[in-house]
Amino acid sequence: MEEAAHPYVPRDLKLPGYVPISMSMSSILTVYLGSSLFVVSLVWFLFGRKNSQLDKLLMCWWAFTGLTHMVLEGYFVFSPEFFKDNTSCYLAEVCKKEYSKGDSRYAGRDSAVIAVEGITAVIEGPASLLAVYAIAKGKSYSYVLQLAVSLGQLYGCLVYFITAFLEGDNFATNAFYYYSYYIGANGWWVLIPLLISYRSWIKICETSDNVDTKTQKKKKKIP
Amino acid sequence: MEEAAHPYVPRDLKLPGYVPISMSMSSILTVYLGSSLFVVSLVWFLFGRKNSQLDKLLMCWWAFTGLTHMVLEGYFVFSPEFFKDNTSCYLAEVCKKEYSKGDSRYAGRDSAVIAVEGITAVIEGPASLLAVYAIAKGKSYSYVLQLAVSLGQLYGCLVYFITAFLEGDNFATNAFYYYSYYIGANGWWVLIPLLISYRSWIKICETSDNVDTKTQKKKKKIP
Repeated sequence: MEEAAHPYVPRDLKLPGYVPISMSMSSILTVYLGSSLFVVSLVWFLFGRKNSQLDKLLMCWWAFTGLTHMVLEGYFVFSPEFFKDNTSCYLAEVCKKEYSKGDSRYAGRDSAVIAVEGITAVIEGPASLLAVYAIAKGKSYSYVLQLAVSLGQLYGCLVYFITAFLEGDNFATNAFYYYSYYIGANGWWVLIPLLISYRSWIKICETSDNVDTKTQKKKKKIP
Repeated sequence: MEEAAHPYVPRDLKLPGYVPISMSMSSILTVYLGSSLFVVSLVWFLFGRKNSQLDKLLMCWWAFTGLTHMVLEGYFVFSPEFFKDNTSCYLAEVCKKEYSKGDSRYAGRDSAVIAVEGITAVIEGPASLLAVYAIAKGKSYSYVLQLAVSLGQLYGCLVYFITAFLEGDNFATNAFYYYSYYIGANGWWVLIPLLISYRSWIKICETSDNVDTKTQKKKKKIP
């Protein structure tokens, strides 16, 4: 069987049975951004009454990132031969035929990428959706859950970037895909988890400080 | 140059310039366990007066794990050619000439292993020592710090085990090293972080619950 050509770098990456991508980049992005906008709007209006603007924003993020983890990344992890898919299935096209132009380790089934994506899809995905519920209901575990998931996302990004660096950082089809997909898309999953971790950490410490101060005051009153 | 024989599996692993291990397994373990016992005893007696038994145990764990991360794992990460070391340097012998018998990916400089060990040595090592200080001084960030480091350790172990599994799980010299080093030694870094995460999570939620209850009581009092 003649080996199919593929658009990925390194050029000697072996992908026997590769079926070329059939959707255009603009269609793929339109579907992704459109469905994300739909989810975000739904969350914003569903939880519009009782919650603050910031809480609503956070719930939108957690719904968006949770579904991205579970649907896109979950499909990638559990579909080892997605690059052979010839049904024009949207998930196979984006996950990660298109994204592999930014990082061919997805098409090449790099074990570090699968490990990180597996943890993200199976643990962090459902935990992100739980965070939407926790914020909406003002649960006591809301901040600690948000911190835990955000730290997981940051750890995953660190492993993802460090392994690429150690292996030569040469997995993008060209500079456009490198900066838009590999750096640009992942950058959001560094920036937002950093901000949420920082806020959650501060909130948890403030609560602890309040309790400590009250306990000390009580102790002082007792002779 | 004739390639030196090495004791690791897979047998076709290339380690040009490999210098055989010169210390015995018992000497290596005696030094490691002896110095760990010294650190643990030091922490136990230094912080013996004000802290509870459990807090002292936790401080011992954080001092032990922090120094292991920084010294042993730090040396491994920043000494790419440790397997060529012929000075009988203890750190090169244990880090990880000896440990590589349980997982040859250390000698083979597997990028996922280096990424996880790098994060562990550079971030989690100092953070573990900070946890000793935080517990000793009863800092408000004590539980959240312990939770964050423990979750990092668990994430690292997950990546470590999943990548080995995906790559065929055939990196141990024999069953003894597989179960004693790869499973046995790492098992502690799954079990203890799991227990600490669980406890820290519960403590943080209890604090948050207490504050919520008090706030609600105050609100009820205000007409």
